[in-house]
Amino acid sequence: MSSEELNIKRKMARQNGIVQPLLTDLYQITMAYAYWKSGKVNDVAVFDLFFRTNPFQGEFTIFAGLEECLKFLENFHYSDSDIQYLQQTLPENIEPEFFAYLKDLTCKDIRVSAIEEGSVVFPRVPLLRVEGPLIVAQLLETTLLTLVNFASLMATNAARYRMVAGKNVSLLEFGLRRAQGPDGGLSASKYAYIGGFDGTSNVLAGKMFNIPVRGTHAHSFVTSFSTLDDLHSVIIRHAETQNPCNLLELSIEWRKRVSAVIDISPEEASDGELAALISYALAFPSGFLALVDTYDVKRSGLLNFCAVALALNDCGYRAGGIRIDSGDLAYLSVLARETFESIAEAFKLPWFSKLTIVASNDINEETILSLNEQGHKIDTFGIGTHLVTCQRQPALGCVYKLTEINGQPRIKLSQDVGKVTIPGHKEAYRLFGADGHALIDLLQRSSEPAPEVGQKVLCRHPFQESKRAYVIPSKVEHLYKVYWKDGIIHTMPKPLHEVRQRVQSSLRTLRQDIKRNLNPTPYKVAVSDDLYNFIHDLWLQNAPIGELS
Amino acid sequence: MSSEELNIKRKMARQNGIVQPLLTDLYQITMAYAYWKSGKVNDVAVFDLFFRTNPFQGEFTIFAGLEECLKFLENFHYSDSDIQYLQQTLPENIEPEFFAYLKDLTCKDIRVSAIEEGSVVFPRVPLLRVEGPLIVAQLLETTLLTLVNFASLMATNAARYRMVAGKNVSLLEFGLRRAQGPDGGLSASKYAYIGGFDGTSNVLAGKMFNIPVRGTHAHSFVTSFSTLDDLHSVIIRHAETQNPCNLLELSIEWRKRVSAVIDISPEEASDGELAALISYALAFPSGFLALVDTYDVKRSGLLNFCAVALALNDCGYRAGGIRIDSGDLAYLSVLARETFESIAEAFKLPWFSKLTIVASNDINEETILSLNEQGHKIDTFGIGTHLVTCQRQPALGCVYKLTEINGQPRIKLSQDVGKVTIPGHKEAYRLFGADGHALIDLLQRSSEPAPEVGQKVLCRHPFQESKRAYVIPSKVEHLYKVYWKDGIIHTMPKPLHEVRQRVQSSLRTLRQDIKRNLNPTPYKVAVSDDLYNFIHDLWLQNAPIGELS
Repeated sequence: MSSEELNIKRKMARQNGIVQPLLTDLYQITMAYAYWKSGKVNDVAVFDLFFRTNPFQGEFTIFAGLEECLKFLENFHYSDSDIQYLQQTLPENIEPEFFAYLKDLTCKDIRVSAIEEGSVVFPRVPLLRVEGPLIVAQLLETTLLTLVNFASLMATNAARYRMVAGKNVSLLEFGLRRAQGPDGGLSASKYAYIGGFDGTSNVLAGKMFNIPVRGTHAHSFVTSFSTLDDLHSVIIRHAETQNPCNLLELSIEWRKRVSAVIDISPEEASDGELAALISYALAFPSGFLALVDTYDVKRSGLLNFCAVALALNDCGYRAGGIRIDSGDLAYLSVLARETFESIAEAFKLPWFSKLTIVASNDINEETILSLNEQGHKIDTFGIGTHLVTCQRQPALGCVYKLTEINGQPRIKLSQDVGKVTIPGHKEAYRLFGADGHALIDLLQRSSEPAPEVGQKVLCRHPFQESKRAYVIPSKVEHLYKVYWKDGIIHTMPKPLHEVRQRVQSSLRTLRQDIKRNLNPTPYKVAVSDDLYNFIHDLWLQNAPIGELS
Repeated sequence: MSSEELNIKRKMARQNGIVQPLLTDLYQITMAYAYWKSGKVNDVAVFDLFFRTNPFQGEFTIFAGLEECLKFLENFHYSDSDIQYLQQTLPENIEPEFFAYLKDLTCKDIRVSAIEEGSVVFPRVPLLRVEGPLIVAQLLETTLLTLVNFASLMATNAARYRMVAGKNVSLLEFGLRRAQGPDGGLSASKYAYIGGFDGTSNVLAGKMFNIPVRGTHAHSFVTSFSTLDDLHSVIIRHAETQNPCNLLELSIEWRKRVSAVIDISPEEASDGELAALISYALAFPSGFLALVDTYDVKRSGLLNFCAVALALNDCGYRAGGIRIDSGDLAYLSVLARETFESIAEAFKLPWFSKLTIVASNDINEETILSLNEQGHKIDTFGIGTHLVTCQRQPALGCVYKLTEINGQPRIKLSQDVGKVTIPGHKEAYRLFGADGHALIDLLQRSSEPAPEVGQKVLCRHPFQESKRAYVIPSKVEHLYKVYWKDGIIHTMPKPLHEVRQRVQSSLRTLRQDIKRNLNPTPYKVAVSDDLYNFIHDLWLQNAPIGELS
């Protein structure tokens, strides 16, 4: 079995745990019974899954969660114990044949069309279109929403961090301990990676999804050492010669020499910290990366780190760098970089100036923007709480709306125009301009011919009559593929690293002003003239004429 | 097997899915190797798990997640595939004996003392004290934090909703679709119930945790019916006589009579909605509960509901009530109650005035407070996004700090005094006043004698020298019990419904001003005079003397 196949097996095994048909709202099952009892078993419905507002006061969203939706459809089945539970839970007078019907339900008659996972998507454009038996399609609602909402929110959040951090900085997800439940943490690791992060501290996520894992040590590791006497062993073999080197003696010697270069007295540096760093370096001599803010970055941590890194260099190992987890990150990173540069010069070790600086204290989008403005020398951000809980907006509001039943369109009206649904079976197209940028997303009735390259298309605001524009696309992308049909996955979802690439390539098609952090320009989503008239005719037919009183 | 035992088995099965030793940060494992390599296998450590600030701008927190922590300890074991993954992931030069060491690790030498799950708890008082081999205790950090942080945050959030809603209102958790991942949804359902909710819409949570599940139907159910012709069957048997009744005819007849009473023309009401409600009533005639805001609560929904409810009454069934999911909930609930009362009087059916009114549109603590002020007639709130994602503050900041190693105290200093840890092996006591209210939580060194009833105790602020008070407790509660020892659960955690009761009884011991929503009074957490001196001696020993420059 290839490692990719193994990964898919593992993911399925995980899903079998809790992603199952009972992971839903009870009303889906009570509605199923009411439909079943009223003879609607053969009714055919179309549902659209979409959101109405982009998260984080932004103007784009990344669509994610599709692969998990497909696994859910594949495994959709009520077990005997599920049926038994439902029999105990629903009112006594439910007809027993209904449970027999549920027992045999699968998704074989369902068809799911969707936008490619990892694409940038916009309000009101359906991410998934679910067609098939009304009862089954309705039963899928809550679980599909759960799987898409948080996945898309996380991927979007991560993509936003990636944009503000720029391409040359590494981003690591460090949020497991503050995540919303164990699986909230795993989902966060997975979708942060998809959205553009480079790795995670979450080992299980690494194992399950083949994501790079990263991590060094905590403050407690440093405080567990009090003095140099706490070191039981201090010998390391030289990387090439294999000769034994005394890392403690070398480090103490180097601490004196470094101390002279950077003008910090070695007496101010903590010996417990030096012991801890030596101990850590003995375990991980290559790429040695140390936390330097347990006591004082300037007076203790940097000095001790440089001493050990230079001692390791004597033994044939090249250190990795430092992590700073508190204080003024702009100032401290600049100080650290200057220190590394002084040492590089003093001891003729050019690589020393390029050591990695990791920062990891309560970082969010605004912190990174502010650090960028101040000027910093950080190579890697480790980001936790704000990223994994999406603190700025912890939920995406995807909804799942009925748009057609037995070929008849359905519209959900609302006094809030933004909540009126766009009825009927529709297609979505993305129209691109000559410079390769996406211009507009266009919804059409499925019966209409697709827009053509070089042909003028009238694009209308779905609800405001006067807002119209002609567009002549240089490229037209049909946004939907059929992913699920005849009880099997019809289009294989892309593996994780390809979805991750898709996020970046899809974002590149968006104009910069749509992506910017402050007051971004909204991307336009339009309907065809045909669909416009269809919506508004249906609206008038269905809206009661009010009475002023 | 009893249903309780069955539930525990189920929970364990679930945990085995993802709550496992690899659900941790990589640095725990790299630190473990560094400790192992530096001969610290027999070092013994004490860690405290605590938080520094109450969530939601409140002054209390509910401690939850203990049972899941114990299950984690019980199942703690690295599988062969875990070891294989770690071998691939860690640097090549890791000594193979380390993996053999990991393979055999269990929690048999760990001892965990904790506060009872469901108790009100306060900043800086350890919720868990973990003692045992340094390496093992360190390896538990991230997973314990993940299990306690979200559980406690959710339980606290739910308890706050319960307090603002009052005792006479039902609270239902409806948040699965917006939760942070499938397990975020399950945890939310579980800990919302513990915090004081009465039920959930989440069927799997109902099955796994034996929580009451609730739900009716969605707007899509209503819009799936267009006209009365969409009804395939309309006959229901009378509850007692078993005679067939035509629910459609009866409903149309009653709609005319109700229309006259409440002065709304039956022509304004949607026939599609009436068809949907009849269909739903045929499936669930007892306790029929209908969503009434699909078109217009006043002109359509209420009229149709009352018609069907009265028709059901003719057939020997008593309806349950309505759900309103949009609009001005205060106004609409008052309107609905008045309508029910008019009908109760007009048709001499007193029970009709008592029908349940459920409200469920984007409700949070502030909405409930505002509804209380305006005056409303809602019996049940269905609460989703704000509850399950803890939108107001989506993470609790529990930390896990080393306080002692091989009998020697450890202190973590910080320029931010709030982040200085309280060193050493400690006990926590809650001192109560004569009126039964909790006065103060007191931390002492474990070597000190416990405070005694009727004896004066000097309670000191841990960091501010001048803040001191004498307390003469009328009752003293030692907050810790040993829950895990010798590789087994030493004190069985209470079952879910008892933890739920504990939340309410524990909250009753808090003065009202500590619990109030606006500007609550902080509850005091103090240290003994002995512990105060111990902290400050250690602080001076460890703090470097700075230099002004």
